[in-house]
This record gives sequence, structure tokens and C-alpha cells, in this order.
Amino acid sequence: MEKKERAPVYYSEYLQLQKILNAQEPESAKEGIRADDEMLFIIIHQTYELWFKQILHELSLVRDIFKQPSIPNNAPDIYNTVHRLNRVCRILEIAVSQMNVMETMTPLDFLDFRDLLRPASGFQSIQFKMIEATLGLSYDQRHGKGYYLSQLNPYDIELVKKAESEQSILVLVNQWLERMPYVQDDPYWKHNGDNNSFWDKYYEVYKNSLSEVEMANLSAFEKLFINDKDYPAERRFSAQANRSALFIMLYRDHPLLHLPYELLNTLLEVDELMAMWRYRHIHMVQRTIGKRVGTGGSTGAEYLRAAADSHYVFKELAELTSFLLPRNLLPALPEKVIKELSYN
Amino acid sequence: MEKKERAPVYYSEYLQLQKILNAQEPESAKEGIRADDEMLFIIIHQTYELWFKQILHELSLVRDIFKQPSIPNNAPDIYNTVHRLNRVCRILEIAVSQMNVMETMTPLDFLDFRDLLRPASGFQSIQFKMIEATLGLSYDQRHGKGYYLSQLNPYDIELVKKAESEQSILVLVNQWLERMPYVQDDPYWKHNGDNNSFWDKYYEVYKNSLSEVEMANLSAFEKLFINDKDYPAERRFSAQANRSALFIMLYRDHPLLHLPYELLNTLLEVDELMAMWRYRHIHMVQRTIGKRVGTGGSTGAEYLRAAADSHYVFKELAELTSFLLPRNLLPALPEKVIKELSYN
Amino acid sequence: MEKKERAPVYYSEYLQLQKILNAQEPESAKEGIRADDEMLFIIIHQTYELWFKQILHELSLVRDIFKQPSIPNNAPDIYNTVHRLNRVCRILEIAVSQMNVMETMTPLDFLDFRDLLRPASGFQSIQFKMIEATLGLSYDQRHGKGYYLSQLNPYDIELVKKAESEQSILVLVNQWLERMPYVQDDPYWKHNGDNNSFWDKYYEVYKNSLSEVEMANLSAFEKLFINDKDYPAERRFSAQANRSALFIMLYRDHPLLHLPYELLNTLLEVDELMAMWRYRHIHMVQRTIGKRVGTGGSTGAEYLRAAADSHYVFKELAELTSFLLPRNLLPALPEKVIKELSYN
Amino acid sequence: MEKKERAPVYYSEYLQLQKILNAQEPESAKEGIRADDEMLFIIIHQTYELWFKQILHELSLVRDIFKQPSIPNNAPDIYNTVHRLNRVCRILEIAVSQMNVMETMTPLDFLDFRDLLRPASGFQSIQFKMIEATLGLSYDQRHGKGYYLSQLNPYDIELVKKAESEQSILVLVNQWLERMPYVQDDPYWKHNGDNNSFWDKYYEVYKNSLSEVEMANLSAFEKLFINDKDYPAERRFSAQANRSALFIMLYRDHPLLHLPYELLNTLLEVDELMAMWRYRHIHMVQRTIGKRVGTGGSTGAEYLRAAADSHYVFKELAELTSFLLPRNLLPALPEKVIKELSYN
Repeated sequence: MEKKERAPVYYSEYLQLQKILNAQEPESAKEGIRADDEMLFIIIHQTYELWFKQILHELSLVRDIFKQPSIPNNAPDIYNTVHRLNRVCRILEIAVSQMNVMETMTPLDFLDFRDLLRPASGFQSIQFKMIEATLGLSYDQRHGKGYYLSQLNPYDIELVKKAESEQSILVLVNQWLERMPYVQDDPYWKHNGDNNSFWDKYYEVYKNSLSEVEMANLSAFEKLFINDKDYPAERRFSAQANRSALFIMLYRDHPLLHLPYELLNTLLEVDELMAMWRYRHIHMVQRTIGKRVGTGGSTGAEYLRAAADSHYVFKELAELTSFLLPRNLLPALPEKVIKELSYN
Repeated sequence: MEKKERAPVYYSEYLQLQKILNAQEPESAKEGIRADDEMLFIIIHQTYELWFKQILHELSLVRDIFKQPSIPNNAPDIYNTVHRLNRVCRILEIAVSQMNVMETMTPLDFLDFRDLLRPASGFQSIQFKMIEATLGLSYDQRHGKGYYLSQLNPYDIELVKKAESEQSILVLVNQWLERMPYVQDDPYWKHNGDNNSFWDKYYEVYKNSLSEVEMANLSAFEKLFINDKDYPAERRFSAQANRSALFIMLYRDHPLLHLPYELLNTLLEVDELMAMWRYRHIHMVQRTIGKRVGTGGSTGAEYLRAAADSHYVFKELAELTSFLLPRNLLPALPEKVIKELSYN
Repeated sequence: MEKKERAPVYYSEYLQLQKILNAQEPESAKEGIRADDEMLFIIIHQTYELWFKQILHELSLVRDIFKQPSIPNNAPDIYNTVHRLNRVCRILEIAVSQMNVMETMTPLDFLDFRDLLRPASGFQSIQFKMIEATLGLSYDQRHGKGYYLSQLNPYDIELVKKAESEQSILVLVNQWLERMPYVQDDPYWKHNGDNNSFWDKYYEVYKNSLSEVEMANLSAFEKLFINDKDYPAERRFSAQANRSALFIMLYRDHPLLHLPYELLNTLLEVDELMAMWRYRHIHMVQRTIGKRVGTGGSTGAEYLRAAADSHYVFKELAELTSFLLPRNLLPALPEKVIKELSYN
Repeated sequence: MEKKERAPVYYSEYLQLQKILNAQEPESAKEGIRADDEMLFIIIHQTYELWFKQILHELSLVRDIFKQPSIPNNAPDIYNTVHRLNRVCRILEIAVSQMNVMETMTPLDFLDFRDLLRPASGFQSIQFKMIEATLGLSYDQRHGKGYYLSQLNPYDIELVKKAESEQSILVLVNQWLERMPYVQDDPYWKHNGDNNSFWDKYYEVYKNSLSEVEMANLSAFEKLFINDKDYPAERRFSAQANRSALFIMLYRDHPLLHLPYELLNTLLEVDELMAMWRYRHIHMVQRTIGKRVGTGGSTGAEYLRAAADSHYVFKELAELTSFLLPRNLLPALPEKVIKELSYN
């Protein structure tokens, strides 16, 4: 086999450790100040950036799969997206846990070198903003937009803008959901000699399931699943996509829907872990820095809190769980649909 | 030794497993409905309640220590409180992690038995409210007070009220901080032939450390540390206690202050982990239940969010980090104080 | 809807908290000795037993599914087993993490009540032994068999023996693998006008992939996959099952094999986490108890170490990864097989 | 303040992200092979090496403190070592958790590029070996010594040898324990008119605490604490050091011994987490690679297993817990000693 002719690979060269392990130059050392914890501060941020690169790598592979005009059922594509998004979740869990390490740096120890870093700020992490953009956070949704333009250098602004200009995973998943058959035009039910569409039936059962105090849910149901025309403009997922997403959640026990269900679930988990990261970040900043003006000139904690509350990407999908019906009340699927959702 | 005369202890009897392992009676089973996940729902809540009992046990021991009119320096008391609060943190970490298990229950699987539980709700966990009260959450600060009275049975309301009526750890720690010498009446500095008090000096250096845009911090400093008379009434820690707390944070390298520093730090960690628990809880509720009316008749997620934002107990201590000065700018302590803060 | 007629459910009654929270009676209290940590010791073991009950509940549901003479492809059965075993993994992660809480009990604090517990021992946890038996650990494989009979009371021995006498998940999964078509009698290849069976081809490519120093792997390959007749008697998975398992690992990208692959993977994860639990347990025992005779009369750490090394259940499946070939070398599947592994 | 005159610091420059984020060159890309997971493989190893650098940084600071001929009681030195070793523990926890990310790489996906990496191996991580050496693992104790010389390049061998030639933390902590007064020559007891030394008394009580079956522990006690002359040569901690360590464990409630106790405890935690890392590593290697010859030419899992069992550094300290007595049986300390162990 030809591989035997390759030059031998050595661990430290393969990993380019000369570069990686010589990229720590504390500002305190330059000033002749002893600040033993600045090394930690540098290294933890470098590991974050490495992980962000890996997350972008995975998200980019996921996006490439969804960019296909139609994703073949019998290819491992959706399987692959679930697998990669799961990995992103495991990485985000590490990112969250690393706050435990950061929190071993006390406020007093941070003060030893904090002023030397001005005006650098974690806000300037371009990769994190690219992750948000790739998932589907639009420029309009960003908290602190003006600040964003003033704090980044032009080259970095370009990078984020480019990421924002591409079709995000949110947009692509929305299209993929819209393309899903079964519950869009309901041909299956009609051909079945059944004059009620799936959603007519579902609406009826859902309505009956509500007690009087819960009736308000009905108009929400109509808004989100039925009336395509007066659908709220600010929503990112269309009514059409919502219908498919709910259908997937309801009938996930059918083989063809296993993976789509896992996909939706994993997107929600990514969202949650991103929020959790911001949330732990807030606590870390508060415990280490207090409410004083941050190294980047902003009150970091406030920015993070606003972002934690508003930078959700897939929240609309999470809301759909309010409209689920228990299995025993679900409309039975026509034989033809059951067959199409099956293994051969 | 007398221990040999005791009756032998057997694992399952010691742990009363007959009781513990026969306390799961799913409502679905009573109705003849198959709902395989109700067992998980019951057991995870039971483990939570067991942990809450343990947390109350630890907090009660901590409170007993602080109830002493004066805590002797050379007894292991503060060491013990730090140790016990650290354990509380480790338990809260488990409580947070258990959400991972809860989240394996899908919304559809929960619907199999959800309606059978009405109107029970996690909100009815008395022990959790007792933990909050023991730490220092007052009735006034509670989100959803009216609801609280309507959802609990009279016996449980009594239990929470009793916990609220005792001196909380917050109140006792505040008193303990107020009793701390050194920086209250500054006898050490005065006897030293030094006419400026510690806080006069600190104020001066702090002021000089602020850039023009940061000057707003100065009045905050005055408010929190200096002017006992017009001190904001809504604050739970007094200016006197704040001074001691800041002193501990600044001079924690002196032996006598090691443990007090760890204590303050651990109180903040308890607060953070309680918030983290509520936060994970919110996500879990949202993913599993959606925005519909919860089993307890409220939108659980909204209650949890408000509580997560407002039920902090030791937040005021966290804010003090804004007023730290770097070690190289700290006023030198008089020899006499250094000696009092030392080992023999 | 009829549910409205049910009596209202109250949180503390539903969870039977009267029982659960009144099942802690420290031996030290009975002796009038102050031992503040005995409460932790009791409660942590009670949470373990609650989780063990939940694990048994899940494993029992998994076993029921595999007990079917044939598991239909288009039912959610395998999906369900993967889901439940995943939950078992999340629970085991909690069980592992709880060691962090246990380790907050120092050896000196344990000594305050340790002698009062004799001869009780965690070894007497029947549920843990039942979990091992349900997974597939046989009596013969158990470390410390004699000890096992001497330490348990007759009723408990009966319970474990009963669990051991039922078909374990290992045995049932082996049968399920043996029933899998495609690579057992290779009808597909033969009908295809192809005289070489799948395994003839695979053997050839595998052999070519080995360098000279690796040739020893070839006879291992023959032993495990080919020669049913002189197959090693001590192995728990048959050669027939091994072939299916390897086939699943290799062609997991085909829809019908997604879930079987996840299943195998999750069984390995259960095994790993059981081992991890024993391993953390060892460290905890060593740090808390030392090498002295344990409360149960044995050197607990030694038992745990031997069990950690020998109580693996699905190890044989893990070993199969040595015989994988890279995707680009895999024999192409006949069209007919590809179709059978697809969605409709 | 002079800091305002410094050039502004920018996040990506400060962290040298140009270097860090351009140090990933997959071998598969060079060969024109698509192997999407090689990026993960590179990045996770790079984060490990960054963390190893940080651990070495912390251990080096700890070592510097212990290199002092005498560590002053009233300096924050021991406080600092505990703090830094705690941080090392938090980092090792991250290192352990990262295995969760690694395990998302399936064996089949690894095979896409595995052969291209030959003969590189994680065994070639010099920093990890330096960590082991700095803690106190000697060349003699190393598993696979010959292999070690053959797999590393001369420059790397030099680095490890240099780390091994310096005084390790184990050696320095042993010296520090040996210097501890109170229980070495027992002047306090003698001056007290008391003819029995502390250890005579302790021996007596310990002996009485043993039941008949436990009597074997007595000679172990004599060996480890009493007989300096025929002390086992293979042990790394001296009898003198053992006496101090046990004294610290027993009387840790006295202020001066709080931190020494935390120090011993944290050293044991470092040991445990190093072992846990090796253990998770083993499972990861087994699940991903199987028993075939590893990329480094060895069966990685076997090396790791042997190292996991034999590379403990502070095990002897852990063993001392077997010789603790309950608080109520402890010999009372003379007033003079109590005073010396107190705050002023």
C-alpha cells in the first residue's frame, strides 16, 4: 500500500507545537510586572478560539449538506448533520465547563494585569460572532450593533459581514422543512377519499384538548400553523416549516422521521448550550470583574446578559412543543404515508 | 470497645430501602395507562428532594455556627462553614447536571401522563423554598408572592414562613462582618500616629485609579462604604459589613483572612449555582413543556425566569469586586494589624 | 375530558415525601454521638439506590423489546432501546459525578461513625448486582463469588439469582445479531451470480491491509468471524453475531443500520460508564477509608478494582473495531442489499 | 497613570490568533483525501498541549515555592500552592471531559486518515511526560522505558530527562514535611514532664482500636511511622514525613494546619485526576482504535493501562488514611503546641 512511502509523521510537528506553544507573550512580562495568572488568561482564550474554529468547521459541513437543492433520503446526509451538531454540543459543554478554570482566577489576581490589556475584549472574538451568524443570528438581531462596528477592526467586520451574508443554517433548515411533503398540500389525505386535511383534523382535536382557561392557545395555533398570509413578519420559520416541524415531533416514531426529530432536538440543544455559555460567562465576569467598565470599554456583563436573552436562534422551534397532542389523540396516518415513512 | 456489642447493621435496613424503593406509584398505572417515563419523573424529583434535605442539613449547621455571638478565631468554625458550603456547591452541581437526565424525557413522552398530575407543580417544593429562605431570600423579594399563598397547602406555607422568620445566613454573615475589627473604627491607624483612617487613604487611591469616564464609580464607592447615615434602605448588607468584606478581599493573603475570603467566595458560588439550577430548569421546562399553561397552572418557565433574575441572595457581595485596587496600590497595613492577622 | 374528574394531585403526596424524607436515621444519633456527616452518607446512598431502581426500570423495558422473537423494522422498538440506554448513560454519569459529593467527606469525619455501621457495606447493594446481571454479567464471571454468598441475606441472594437466571440483554442482543440477514448465509451475493461470499471478499481485503508485523491479526480475524466450529467457548458473542456486529459498524451509513449502530455504541458506553463508576468508587474508598479492613469486612478497594477490571459485559463488541476496514476499501454491497437497507 | 500611554491591545493580536488558528494542516488534505474528522483530531490535541503548558506553568510556580529552604508561616505561600494545585485539578477535569468530544469520532471516521499519521503517537507528548516528572514520577517508575527512548527524538528525550533531573514536587514536599516540628523529636511533650512521646501514645491507642482480625495493621504502622532505620527503601516519602503527614490529617482543625491539610488533599486529587485521564484515554483508544497496533507502533491501550496502574505519585500519602484514629481517641495536644498552631 502506498501509505508506507510517506515521510514519518512526528507528534509535535504534526500538531505544529512550535507555533502553538510559543504564542503566549504576557503583556505583564513586557512591562516587567509579575502577574502569574496572565498565562492562564491567554491560554484559556486560545483554547476557546481553537474550539470555535472546530465548531465553525462542523457548522460549515452541516451547512454544505443543507445547501443541496434536495437532500436524498437514502444518503447518510441527515445522519451526518445530527452527528456533527451533536459534536458541536459536546464542544460547547467543554466551553461551558472551562469557566470553572477561569473562575480560579480571583479578581485581585486579574487586577495585576487587567489594565495592560485595554481595550482588548472578548467581544472582539470574530469566530464567536461567525458561529452566531452561521447558525442564523442576523445583524438586526444583534445586541449592541453600533458598538460592534466601533470595537472591531475593518478586516474583522468584513469577516462577520461575510458570514452574515451567507445562507444560515436556520434559513436552510427552514427551506428543508418547507420542502417536506406529507403535511403541506395533504395530497395523501385527499386521495384517500378524505375531505379533511391533516391540519383540519389536528385543529379540531387540539381545540378539544384545551380547557377554558387555555383557549388563548388556539389563536396562537392558528397564527403559527394555518394562516400563511398574515403570518407574523418577524418570525424566521415560516408557517409551512412549522407544520413540518410539528409533524416531525408528533410522528418521530416512524423510521424516516427519527433523524429529522434528532436534528430538531440537536438544534435546540445547540441554542441552549450557546445560552448557557453566555450565562456562565456573565457570572464569571461578574465574579472576576464586577460592574466596573470592562477591559473593552463596555460593561461586559450587561452586554452578555442582553445577548443571553436575545441571541437565541431556534427559539421558535422550541415554542412548537406547546402545540403537541398526546399520542393517543393523534390523527392516524394514511397507509400510504406510513409506508413512505418506513424502511423498505 | 463497646461497638462490638451493637447489633449488626445491614445495608438495606440502614438505608430504609423498603420505604425508599416502594415510594413510586405512577398516576398512569392507577389509570391503566402505559406511560413508561413517569417512573423517571417521580424518581428524579425524589432525588432532588433528598438532596434538598441534605442542603438544608448543611445550611442549618452553617447557621448554627454563625448564630454564636462571637466566633472564636482559633476554633475550626469558619473552616467548617467553608467546608459545608463547598459541599452544598458540589450538591448543587449534581442538581444542575441532573437536568441532563430530565431532558431525555421528550415532550411527547411527558404528554402521556402530564394531565394526570394536575395541579401538582415543582413550585410546591417546600424544601427548595426553605433553602432560599435559609440563605436569605425574604418573602418580599419572592417573585409571585400571591401565587405562592394560593398554591401551597397551609401546613407547607407554615414551614416556609417559619424558615423565613429565622435569622438567615445572609443576616448572620452581615452581623459577623460588622463585628470584624481593623477597619471599622480604625484604632490601629490612629494609634499609629496616623491621622488618616484606612478608608480615607483607600478613597484617595481609588479615586486616582479612575480615568475620567470611570468617575461615576466614585459616588458608588461613597454610597456603599462611607456614608452610613444615608445608606440605601433596600440593601441587605450594611456599609459596615461592606467595608469588612472589601478588606477581606483585599488582604486575603494574610493568614487570618484566608478562610473569611474562602467563605465570601463560596457564598457567591452558592448563589451562582442556585441561579444556574433555575436557568437549566427553565430550558428543561421550555424544551419539555413549551409555553402552555404548566401542570401547576402557571407558565412555569416565566416564573423560573423571574426567579432566576431576582432571587440572588449575595449579589451585593459580588458587586464589591468593582471597588478592588491592585495589590501594588494597596495601603500598607500597620505592623500591629499584620501581626493580628498572623499565625502565632 | 375525563381527566378533570380526578382528585387533584399535590406535589409532596405524589412524591410520597413523607416516606422519602423520613427515612434517615443515623446510627450515631441512636448512640448519642455527634457525627454531622452521617446524614450525607445515608442520603447519597439513597439517591444511588433510587437511580439504580430507575436503571433497572429502563433495562427491563429494553429487555422486553429484545425478548420478542423478531423485532419489526418499522416499529420504533430499536429507536426506543437506544433512547432508553442513552438515558441509562446519562444516569450513570450522574452516579459517577456524585463521587465528587462523597469525596467532600473526609476520612476523619467518616471515622466519627464508621464503626457503628459494621458490617454493612455497599457490596450489599442488591440493585447494583441486578443491574450487572440484567446487562449480562454471569455468576461465573463475578469477582468474589464466595464472599457474595456470605455477605448477603438469603432473600437478597434470591433476588440476584433470579436476575441472573433471566435472559440478559447480552444474550438477547447476541440472538438479535444472529438473526440479522445479509451476511449470515450471503444469499444476496450468491444470487447476484457472485461466487465469493461477503466474508471471502472481506478477508482478502483485510489481509492485504495488514503490514508484515500486523499479520497476527489475521488469525484473530479467522477465529472471531469465520470458524464457527472451533469458536472459543468462553466468548459470549457468537461468530455469527460478530459478523453482524461488524457489518453494522461498517455499513452504518445505510438507513436501516443507523439505529443498530447507535445501539452497539450505546451498549459500549454503558459498559464504560459502569467501569468508570467502579473506578471513581475505588478512588473515593481509598481516599476516605484507606487500605484497612472495610465496613463490610473486606478491603473494599481491592474488590472494586478486580470488578472494574473483569466485570465488563460488552467488551467483545469493543474489540471488533480492530477489524474494521476504511470505507474506501469496503466491498460494495449488491443493489438488492442496498435497497433493503433503505427507506421506502 | 502610565498605562494610558501603552499601545492599544487588540484581542486577536494579543492571543496571536494568526499563529494559533493557522496551525492545522491535515495530512489527508495533503493527500487529496477527504477526512472531515482530522481537523477535530488536530485541534483537540492542540488544546491538550495548551492545557499541559498551563499545568507546567502552575507546577513550576508550586515547585519554586517549595524550593525555599524554609517556607514562612505568615506568607501566603502554602495558600498559593493550594490555589494553584486546585487550578491544576480544574484543568485536569477539563482534560478528562474532553474525551467526550474525542469519542464523537467513530472508528470508521478515524480510519479515513489514521494510516497517514504513522508513526506519530500521543505517547510522544513531551509536556505530559514533563508533568509526570515534575510531580515526581521517576524514570525508573516509568512503564515502557525502552520504548520511551526509541519513540522520542533526541531533543525531546533531553527535555524529559531535564525535567526528571530537577527536584520534583514529591521530593520537595517530602522535605517540607520532614522539616515540620511538633512530632519529630517531640520536645513539647518531653518538656511537659511527659515521658511518653506523641507516637508512643498514638501507637498505644491505635493498637487498642484494632480488633483481632485487624492486628496485621499494627506492623504496617510500625513500618511506616516508627522504624526509621529499616524503613523500606522503595518508598518515596520517609517515615519522618509520614509522621508529619498523619499529624496534619489528624489535627487539621487547628488553624496552622488547615492549609497543609488542603495541600495534601489536593496532591491526592491531582494524582486521581491524572489517573482518571489515563483511564478515560484507555476507553477512548479502545473504542476508537481497538486492539490493533496503534499509530505509534504499540498497543496504546496496554501502555495506558499499565501507566494508569503504576504512575501514581502520591499514593503513599493516600495509604496513610488507614492509620487515622477517630477524633475522640486522639491524644490531647499540649497547650504549647495548640498555641503554636493558632492565630495570634
